[in-house]
Amino acid sequence: MNPESLKKLLGSVKKGRLSVQKAMQLLKGLPFKDMGFARVDTHRALRKGFPEVVFCPGKTPVQICKIMAEVLEHCECVMASRADREIHEAVLARIPDCTYHETARVITADRRRRFRKRGLVTVCCAGTADIPVAEEARVTAEFMGAKTETVYDAGVAGIHRLLYDTDRIQRAKCVVAVAGMEGALPSVVGGIASVPVIAVPTSIGYGASFGGIAPLLTMLNSCAPGVVVVNIDNGFTAGYTAALINNAGRQQ
Amino acid sequence: MNPESLKKLLGSVKKGRLSVQKAMQLLKGLPFKDMGFARVDTHRALRKGFPEVVFCPGKTPVQICKIMAEVLEHCECVMASRADREIHEAVLARIPDCTYHETARVITADRRRRFRKRGLVTVCCAGTADIPVAEEARVTAEFMGAKTETVYDAGVAGIHRLLYDTDRIQRAKCVVAVAGMEGALPSVVGGIASVPVIAVPTSIGYGASFGGIAPLLTMLNSCAPGVVVVNIDNGFTAGYTAALINNAGRQQ
Amino acid sequence: MNPESLKKLLGSVKKGRLSVQKAMQLLKGLPFKDMGFARVDTHRALRKGFPEVVFCPGKTPVQICKIMAEVLEHCECVMASRADREIHEAVLARIPDCTYHETARVITADRRRRFRKRGLVTVCCAGTADIPVAEEARVTAEFMGAKTETVYDAGVAGIHRLLYDTDRIQRAKCVVAVAGMEGALPSVVGGIASVPVIAVPTSIGYGASFGGIAPLLTMLNSCAPGVVVVNIDNGFTAGYTAALINNAGRQQ
Amino acid sequence: MNPESLKKLLGSVKKGRLSVQKAMQLLKGLPFKDMGFARVDTHRALRKGFPEVVFCPGKTPVQICKIMAEVLEHCECVMASRADREIHEAVLARIPDCTYHETARVITADRRRRFRKRGLVTVCCAGTADIPVAEEARVTAEFMGAKTETVYDAGVAGIHRLLYDTDRIQRAKCVVAVAGMEGALPSVVGGIASVPVIAVPTSIGYGASFGGIAPLLTMLNSCAPGVVVVNIDNGFTAGYTAALINNAGRQQ
Amino acid sequence: MNPESLKKLLGSVKKGRLSVQKAMQLLKGLPFKDMGFARVDTHRALRKGFPEVVFCPGKTPVQICKIMAEVLEHCECVMASRADREIHEAVLARIPDCTYHETARVITADRRRRFRKRGLVTVCCAGTADIPVAEEARVTAEFMGAKTETVYDAGVAGIHRLLYDTDRIQRAKCVVAVAGMEGALPSVVGGIASVPVIAVPTSIGYGASFGGIAPLLTMLNSCAPGVVVVNIDNGFTAGYTAALINNAGRQQ
Amino acid sequence: MNPESLKKLLGSVKKGRLSVQKAMQLLKGLPFKDMGFARVDTHRALRKGFPEVVFCPGKTPVQICKIMAEVLEHCECVMASRADREIHEAVLARIPDCTYHETARVITADRRRRFRKRGLVTVCCAGTADIPVAEEARVTAEFMGAKTETVYDAGVAGIHRLLYDTDRIQRAKCVVAVAGMEGALPSVVGGIASVPVIAVPTSIGYGASFGGIAPLLTMLNSCAPGVVVVNIDNGFTAGYTAALINNAGRQQ
Amino acid sequence: MNPESLKKLLGSVKKGRLSVQKAMQLLKGLPFKDMGFARVDTHRALRKGFPEVVFCPGKTPVQICKIMAEVLEHCECVMASRADREIHEAVLARIPDCTYHETARVITADRRRRFRKRGLVTVCCAGTADIPVAEEARVTAEFMGAKTETVYDAGVAGIHRLLYDTDRIQRAKCVVAVAGMEGALPSVVGGIASVPVIAVPTSIGYGASFGGIAPLLTMLNSCAPGVVVVNIDNGFTAGYTAALINNAGRQQ
Amino acid sequence: MNPESLKKLLGSVKKGRLSVQKAMQLLKGLPFKDMGFARVDTHRALRKGFPEVVFCPGKTPVQICKIMAEVLEHCECVMASRADREIHEAVLARIPDCTYHETARVITADRRRRFRKRGLVTVCCAGTADIPVAEEARVTAEFMGAKTETVYDAGVAGIHRLLYDTDRIQRAKCVVAVAGMEGALPSVVGGIASVPVIAVPTSIGYGASFGGIAPLLTMLNSCAPGVVVVNIDNGFTAGYTAALINNAGRQQ
Repeated sequence: MNPESLKKLLGSVKKGRLSVQKAMQLLKGLPFKDMGFARVDTHRALRKGFPEVVFCPGKTPVQICKIMAEVLEHCECVMASRADREIHEAVLARIPDCTYHETARVITADRRRRFRKRGLVTVCCAGTADIPVAEEARVTAEFMGAKTETVYDAGVAGIHRLLYDTDRIQRAKCVVAVAGMEGALPSVVGGIASVPVIAVPTSIGYGASFGGIAPLLTMLNSCAPGVVVVNIDNGFTAGYTAALINNAGRQQ
Repeated sequence: MNPESLKKLLGSVKKGRLSVQKAMQLLKGLPFKDMGFARVDTHRALRKGFPEVVFCPGKTPVQICKIMAEVLEHCECVMASRADREIHEAVLARIPDCTYHETARVITADRRRRFRKRGLVTVCCAGTADIPVAEEARVTAEFMGAKTETVYDAGVAGIHRLLYDTDRIQRAKCVVAVAGMEGALPSVVGGIASVPVIAVPTSIGYGASFGGIAPLLTMLNSCAPGVVVVNIDNGFTAGYTAALINNAGRQQ
Repeated sequence: MNPESLKKLLGSVKKGRLSVQKAMQLLKGLPFKDMGFARVDTHRALRKGFPEVVFCPGKTPVQICKIMAEVLEHCECVMASRADREIHEAVLARIPDCTYHETARVITADRRRRFRKRGLVTVCCAGTADIPVAEEARVTAEFMGAKTETVYDAGVAGIHRLLYDTDRIQRAKCVVAVAGMEGALPSVVGGIASVPVIAVPTSIGYGASFGGIAPLLTMLNSCAPGVVVVNIDNGFTAGYTAALINNAGRQQ
Repeated sequence: MNPESLKKLLGSVKKGRLSVQKAMQLLKGLPFKDMGFARVDTHRALRKGFPEVVFCPGKTPVQICKIMAEVLEHCECVMASRADREIHEAVLARIPDCTYHETARVITADRRRRFRKRGLVTVCCAGTADIPVAEEARVTAEFMGAKTETVYDAGVAGIHRLLYDTDRIQRAKCVVAVAGMEGALPSVVGGIASVPVIAVPTSIGYGASFGGIAPLLTMLNSCAPGVVVVNIDNGFTAGYTAALINNAGRQQ
Repeated sequence: MNPESLKKLLGSVKKGRLSVQKAMQLLKGLPFKDMGFARVDTHRALRKGFPEVVFCPGKTPVQICKIMAEVLEHCECVMASRADREIHEAVLARIPDCTYHETARVITADRRRRFRKRGLVTVCCAGTADIPVAEEARVTAEFMGAKTETVYDAGVAGIHRLLYDTDRIQRAKCVVAVAGMEGALPSVVGGIASVPVIAVPTSIGYGASFGGIAPLLTMLNSCAPGVVVVNIDNGFTAGYTAALINNAGRQQ
Repeated sequence: MNPESLKKLLGSVKKGRLSVQKAMQLLKGLPFKDMGFARVDTHRALRKGFPEVVFCPGKTPVQICKIMAEVLEHCECVMASRADREIHEAVLARIPDCTYHETARVITADRRRRFRKRGLVTVCCAGTADIPVAEEARVTAEFMGAKTETVYDAGVAGIHRLLYDTDRIQRAKCVVAVAGMEGALPSVVGGIASVPVIAVPTSIGYGASFGGIAPLLTMLNSCAPGVVVVNIDNGFTAGYTAALINNAGRQQ
Repeated sequence: MNPESLKKLLGSVKKGRLSVQKAMQLLKGLPFKDMGFARVDTHRALRKGFPEVVFCPGKTPVQICKIMAEVLEHCECVMASRADREIHEAVLARIPDCTYHETARVITADRRRRFRKRGLVTVCCAGTADIPVAEEARVTAEFMGAKTETVYDAGVAGIHRLLYDTDRIQRAKCVVAVAGMEGALPSVVGGIASVPVIAVPTSIGYGASFGGIAPLLTMLNSCAPGVVVVNIDNGFTAGYTAALINNAGRQQ
Repeated sequence: MNPESLKKLLGSVKKGRLSVQKAMQLLKGLPFKDMGFARVDTHRALRKGFPEVVFCPGKTPVQICKIMAEVLEHCECVMASRADREIHEAVLARIPDCTYHETARVITADRRRRFRKRGLVTVCCAGTADIPVAEEARVTAEFMGAKTETVYDAGVAGIHRLLYDTDRIQRAKCVVAVAGMEGALPSVVGGIASVPVIAVPTSIGYGASFGGIAPLLTMLNSCAPGVVVVNIDNGFTAGYTAALINNAGRQQ
């Protein structure tokens, strides 16, 4: 609420064109639903263009069901991340039309009528074991309206496996590059792509990979410009931001 | 070079439509200029849409001048980052039309004729001491064709100073949020903006800020979706990526 | 025992007003009960205004029961922290009037007659998963005589959820702010409150949160004055110190 | 601004009792002075009971003078921390009645008429080299209205040097305990005091003290309840918070 | 593909001596088999002199079987590392002539006809608990054609146990030295051997060994020249590289 | 074997006073028994005054039994550390006169005839949970011939519980001080004792104790002279070294 | 002051055999001299058998002179560690009979009449650059009454250089082993010596030695029993403790 | 000295074929020259095939000159690493035929008559600023008898600059790959080369490169087999070991 709109609002109250009740709602900030254990940000869809996503760890299946149902009352779609099988079963009982993306550990419920995917987000990963994180990114980006393609198991130790798919990287509006161990993939991808590359370190590795610190540092120090980084194993933020970038053109 | 184009190229050679000489050049990969101490990526402008940027630390003023001059022979503009006064003087002697952005420590030379800035990248920072890093991001983004606005010294301990400029954040196509010490600014900005937020930790602080590790971890763990992170003090990558996102719409 | 009181005491011994036996007790320092496996500080209630609290991890249920019973012989109340269900059952068998605060993992037994809560400690937390630590703080503060209010699930990524309860923060004599992940909540609370804010980092998070190091560093580097920090997940010390501050006015 | 006061304010606007101009000011949040390089929080004195303190590192002497002068136009006193001799000389030229606390590296200017110090904050430190940090805490607490006493060079390796001053610790309303090296002082002080102890780790030490990490961890892990911690070398926050606690009784 | 060979290849296409089809294959880089979940580098044996080794963690038994079978179609041998009993049983069902090296956790299948081991790689380890990692190195080196000898449980705290086998160390073409805890073995071995020493830190130890960081740092800082280091517990790379060095003479 | 004795030995061989066989044995260094999986240092008792101690982790019960039996063939006593119940049962079957020190997790078998304990090693610990490590130190010291006394649960937060036993600390020939959490005990003990203090950090604690790093750093940075440190939870080395110091007087 | 002596003292007061004044002095704990900037522990010589040592860093030359002079009024000798040339010159002006041990950076003044060195402390170091720390240990031990011998530049990469001096190691009552880089020396020495080995890590090294962390971890993880560790570069504590151990026999 | 040779030697002494004097020399181990501040390993050339190299840091120019001169009396060549200009000048005065390799910071003196370089070690580096470390490796390898070639400034962000020189990598007997920042170069090189790759992390970078930790971890976690790692900035060990591998064939 900037000075301009504030002046206008108060003028409307003064002139009686806007009730005190309505003005209060506008001024109190964006509303939320207080469920005791959670304050569901019901209007986030308006503010951010996408409803609140439920991060499952640390919440009980019952809490997750309640929050997802609450979101679905205000939006046409809802998504929960880091959901295991048990959570899926609980949600399924309450939201029968939900879908479980097992490798990605994501639950979605989608009742959007005129939903059309656009653009292209390409998701690469370095090894077979990085696929779950890559899939979390891919499913999130798709859910937010991006078309996606994948280049999996394309680590830099056999660089021809990556260069073979240069095309898919160069056609994308944003690339997500997922890697554990030494985490060198985003640097190489960043040298090929002309769009932003979102690097996702994974906790895959052993010894001096220190649960993902090694690839995280590699990616933060990438000498390829246009490479930005998210938290270890955070496929969700990568997919979310990739979709924001992918959709940028649409908004103009 | 994907299978399609490769087949076509080889067909052209076979039919004599393409000389061996020319085909070799195309197949050998993208060319570069080997200057002994540096391999200048002269065609990067074509591949990435922007010429190679010279990162000054560890290079002598003479080397920097030679590389910048080399780039200017192939492109209409060139930029050097982390340049101190001494380097600027050396460059000025060789490239008289260059500009020194002192706070940002950036040298630019710009001979582009039809260069028009578009969109909006908003650069925020938390404290006065973070301004140099913020300026590096701003100057980079401007140089790459983005219009910019700034919201400086808007730390979260006096949140009204930030909320006052909500408008500038919500109008942007991408926001850069720079902060040292506890680095909480990007999380709050991420809750307001509906576009990607590029978080830049700075080495400003003391004690347990550990030269920027504290804000780096804060930003990587941000619970606001759409927040991606770059290396400590890396205003350049932030500005570069912000401009890529800002320009995304233009390419469609 | 300062010089003044020491001189007086020795004078009393000399004049025969104080027996050697009694003087010894006074001089030997504060007494304790040696139970073999533990030295119970039975007079801590006098010295610190609150009996010793039993920290359960590393002690057997039998040991915990014995210590709690011992404390109850000298004080009207006793408290045990980090107690799981099994411990509660063992304690219940020995101290039937004890209460189990399940979310907070705290056992209390309270036989104080004229116990009246005063003042106000407000406990905030950033996410649903931080509630157990917040509850440990709240139950401890209540047990030590503070009235409490809560603002739960009020993370900075949706800052309006926190600002809505500005009132509860500004009325308190001390605020406890609990957060995992990026841990930015105390900084924002510190900008609103005019009383001390006790920041509690939690081990909630993943990847680069490193079991609570990320929010710990965030809080130590807070640029909001009046923010002090306790150990990761240490709701007890936060609640204890908040109650000390809350009670400060009473002692004058 | 809570719902109650908002309703009242809008009602006043509607009834014409409050001008749009005045309501805007109230609603826009707390005002600040935008000086370009800094947004001075001019009304912090009202909100927090104490004006904004200028943290000098990263600001030029000119900027510091301008900010201090700006604050003095709105408040009767101003303080700058981490100020070296050069800064003091610059400030002296502009604010002739300022005082330089050399060991504490603090500049103050104080034009308060009815300023009376109350209560007691006792500042202890473990070694001679910790005195500058201890003094920063002491000067800050004094400036905020607390009486202070000191117990310096009282490390735990000669515990009698500390126990000798038990009295000064037990009479205080809040104790600040400053220590480098192993940082054990606050634990011992915490066992003696019945009020909150604010522990300040210092960067004094060598080898495995790692610039203050060792005493920081010691203090965070203190088994004495009532011990809270601030950043390494952060005497300012310790003194500020100690004064808040000291003043708590006054406000009732 | 260097300029020389490229020119020749294009000339052949021009003259019709090489079909477009064949040239494409040669130019597209080294082929691989895309199995969906993995891109098997089938021609690695030609390029690196040894087929791709399957690293089991993060892959299902079914995936491992498929990849091993695929490799066996192109090469006469295949090896899988970090394989537990369950994986061995699955592989045995598909590749009945495979062998399980239990201590080393390695599965091999070997159909090479004229396979003769040469040279000498000596594998030392400091303690009984380091033997599994040492065995992984030994089995790998043997599989790649090196003769091996072992000196196990020869820690530096009883240096005579190592010096007794000086001979085995001095006859080798490469020595692998495996150690956990303080990791001093490679330095002492490096002072005796005149060939490269490959140091392998293990995660054996407790407390300040930090899962292998202590021996890793010891080895990186070795003052004995000729000591190079691999990742914690990485017996495979040690054995692989030792075999490369052992085989070096053969290739001349 | 120094030059003097070497010259003498060779002279004896030359003169035929010493057989080649015997000289070889003397020159080959101290002998050991190679059991395949372990090289048992059978003559360590002569060299170090105490037989090799079996560190159980990473060894199978069968291996442990074999090594202990082997040692008992050369010495009158043997000891195994970090032994759980299962190991004890296996050893009991083979060495029926062995003793299991459960809290200390130590197995001993002692057939020494003229074994008399002397001197005094006092073992202190800060909390109940540190007792197992303290007991490992105490049992080791006793086994090596030292009399011992204990001061358990004497943390510095209630310093009178420690000062009460000043006497036991001042009578000892060496003090072992065991502590987790903040680890301040050895510093205070070091200020009281006039003999060496061996500090043992334990992994007891949570959050920022980081598995014992916090008390380890505290102890390394102790400002009390005469404090030396061993690895986290390493009661064995503490007890072993304390006994060496305790026995020092005996040897003169 | 144990219960026995306390009872006796109070009885004496009662019977008038001890004045209140004298009893106070005895009960107040050990006296100290408060110099404002330092509390000099003047009776430490009685309590610890050695006067307080002045650690110079963080103290001005004037302060150091005053403290040393103060100590000399109560004891026959005084020592200052980490003293540079400038400090020595200041001390020399005040205490003309002081001696500067330049390599060790130690100043001593010794007026003891019947001072006779005994026993043997052997000080080893791994490299030439470690000599200053080794010398600090040696000078300290000598000052405290120990005879010393040295084995310098005897790193484990040329183990024969160490084994040559086995004799000096085996004759000592305590060995100090100083090493930077990989820090393996104490483990090897610990395998040879039958007395306690005090390991001193130094900050000598580069890269992954991390200012001494690498050798510190090596030493803490030493598998040789009888090895205890002090802080990085802390030659003083090593020499002090070695002398305590060396002197142990004398006290019996 | 193995049992066989020992038996033979003693037999020779017995039979008078070997003097006690000579046998002593053989048995005492390899001799060294004790210069007081250093024990020069004069026979290392025989044992390791290369004389001791002088590591300059922490030694005075005078000490360096003396050691180099001492080595030259026993060998035909000598080398000093990490030597600055001042050291070179001192050495030049004493050894007029020495050469200073400025970028590599290496001094060599070479009087070998029949010295012929063989094989091929290829040294790659990622950026211009890594050249000094790469040169240290190259000069060392050359001095030890290896031919060398270089591929400098070939970072993975412009992978074509590296692939262009695939040939130089594939012809080598060993490759040294030097990189700072993200350190991804060795992984890509390891995928191309069929010989061992020695990875050298450099301290070039900023922020989260942490003085070389980032590339060190990257390299340790490399998924390309055949990649081994040395300490940060340790060009010497890389060049030394590369030469050992390069020379391996020669010895057969």
